[in-house]
Amino acid sequence: MRGQQEISIGVDMGGTSIKFAVVRGAEIIAKGDPVQTKECGSPDGVVAAVGQRLRELREKYPAVRAIGMGLPGFVNHAAGIVDSLTNVPGWYDVPIRRILEEESGLPAAVENDANCMALAEWKLGAGRGMQDIVCLTLGTGVGAGVVAQGQLLRGYLGAAGELGQVGIDYRGRIGHYGNRGAVEDYIGNGELAREAQIRYAAAQGVYKPLSELTPIHLENAAKEGCPVALGIWNDTARKLAACLLTCHYILNPQAFIIGGGISKAGELLFDPLRRYLKAQIYPAHFEKLQLLPAKFGGEAGIIGAALLALEDLAVSR
Amino acid sequence: MRGQQEISIGVDMGGTSIKFAVVRGAEIIAKGDPVQTKECGSPDGVVAAVGQRLRELREKYPAVRAIGMGLPGFVNHAAGIVDSLTNVPGWYDVPIRRILEEESGLPAAVENDANCMALAEWKLGAGRGMQDIVCLTLGTGVGAGVVAQGQLLRGYLGAAGELGQVGIDYRGRIGHYGNRGAVEDYIGNGELAREAQIRYAAAQGVYKPLSELTPIHLENAAKEGCPVALGIWNDTARKLAACLLTCHYILNPQAFIIGGGISKAGELLFDPLRRYLKAQIYPAHFEKLQLLPAKFGGEAGIIGAALLALEDLAVSR
Repeated sequence: MRGQQEISIGVDMGGTSIKFAVVRGAEIIAKGDPVQTKECGSPDGVVAAVGQRLRELREKYPAVRAIGMGLPGFVNHAAGIVDSLTNVPGWYDVPIRRILEEESGLPAAVENDANCMALAEWKLGAGRGMQDIVCLTLGTGVGAGVVAQGQLLRGYLGAAGELGQVGIDYRGRIGHYGNRGAVEDYIGNGELAREAQIRYAAAQGVYKPLSELTPIHLENAAKEGCPVALGIWNDTARKLAACLLTCHYILNPQAFIIGGGISKAGELLFDPLRRYLKAQIYPAHFEKLQLLPAKFGGEAGIIGAALLALEDLAVSR
Repeated sequence: MRGQQEISIGVDMGGTSIKFAVVRGAEIIAKGDPVQTKECGSPDGVVAAVGQRLRELREKYPAVRAIGMGLPGFVNHAAGIVDSLTNVPGWYDVPIRRILEEESGLPAAVENDANCMALAEWKLGAGRGMQDIVCLTLGTGVGAGVVAQGQLLRGYLGAAGELGQVGIDYRGRIGHYGNRGAVEDYIGNGELAREAQIRYAAAQGVYKPLSELTPIHLENAAKEGCPVALGIWNDTARKLAACLLTCHYILNPQAFIIGGGISKAGELLFDPLRRYLKAQIYPAHFEKLQLLPAKFGGEAGIIGAALLALEDLAVSR
């Protein structure tokens, strides 16, 4: 596989910081200094700072063949344009691929950050060799990417795979786009903490600050047998299962690959999740459905972006 | 296009009857006498009756090149096997493609019936020329097929596109596979009638039998301004919108193509549906999303099955 030999630069833009790495296959050869997203101000500021880093890395690693960048929002891969970013103001209709190419002098590819993560898990991680997978990363929100019939699923406008917006309650909370009952409004880290706070107060008359109710706190409490914490994990599994069930019935994947913060709770999440899925899927199909932890952690996005750059380069040759 | 010239036989199996037609493109040249599903008894009985019809049609139309059959349940197209049928007992692991080929002496293809419908709408109907569509047929249940990135979406085990099972309430009713809140348990014809019965009794103290609360009755009542009937259509649109929203966020299709019984209510359904979608989708994406009535009616399945037969034949050549 090409990606094993050639090297490229992966850029992973988040709401907080922008990370850079020189990558060969799944191996990170070197990292560039991160850029603070907010300090850059406008898209122009981001572009200037990113361009600077890319030129530095290219000078140090002249064998770099291409640049791939993942961004948190609606990215039209085919057109090379950012339609809009979810939590970064000012990004509308930015022709980011062309800008990256001008700044770096190398061919570039751009994609939604969660799609980059899915690409890494598919080609180099837990989903290797499969044709149909759904990858999720569970954190503040739910990021996701879908591979269907051997293709990264992008849809008509490049906006496919937004699993965080899958509805689990048509009369539920109003979410980011006005949509009711989006699963990420029920199982994000913040929601877990708020729900735990209410339940501790009700069950034990104890007020716990949210900072003591992060996933790792809830994991430790559950492992010590705390019924409130166990209840939180069970309910999280139930709500996540509702989202995965819908994905199962629409996409019929071979595997769900799950990473990100709350997935680190391991069997506390996976065990009830498996039970909720088993109870709600046709048995012959459940038997063949795999539930896998992601191979890559926080670097999945950067590895996937770097890989995408080389894949697109191969297609354009 | 090949399908315009060559002819094939489409077979559409339902829980009640099995229909046959000789088809050229979207044109039905001739129909065979239907077979009553229940009178056949076992799968062997069905196969014998279907084989008989196929030989009759082939004798009359010697130019027939292939047979395509749609069946109501889990059909593995690649393997040519029926895994199970939803409402027809006794069908498990039936190698139906091989059987059809032996019975008819012609190459055969088999597929889920709703996928056949989607194929017809995609290649010859409302979705012509598009790469990403979701087709639904609304009746007793919700049948559906998905085209993603220019491919009929089948998934790992051929069970993709089961949109009737999309969950709209994770604490909702328990459905066919034990799954909670499946949309078809909320918007099927029977459910509309039951819900209307309750509301008429509550609002007007009137008991109406279910037979007077079919979609056509509710359509006529709504057109006369009856608030109970208008409420039923509005709520149906809201629940259907929840399903379509989830599809939008996962698949990002260019169009939803909607056919079947209750879709005949036209703007009574489509108008509130459009409003519920608009309120819950990112505006730049909603603008480009099409909501289209299906082109074909009850014959979509048979036309799609016949088309599939020719498409598979072309691939195998």
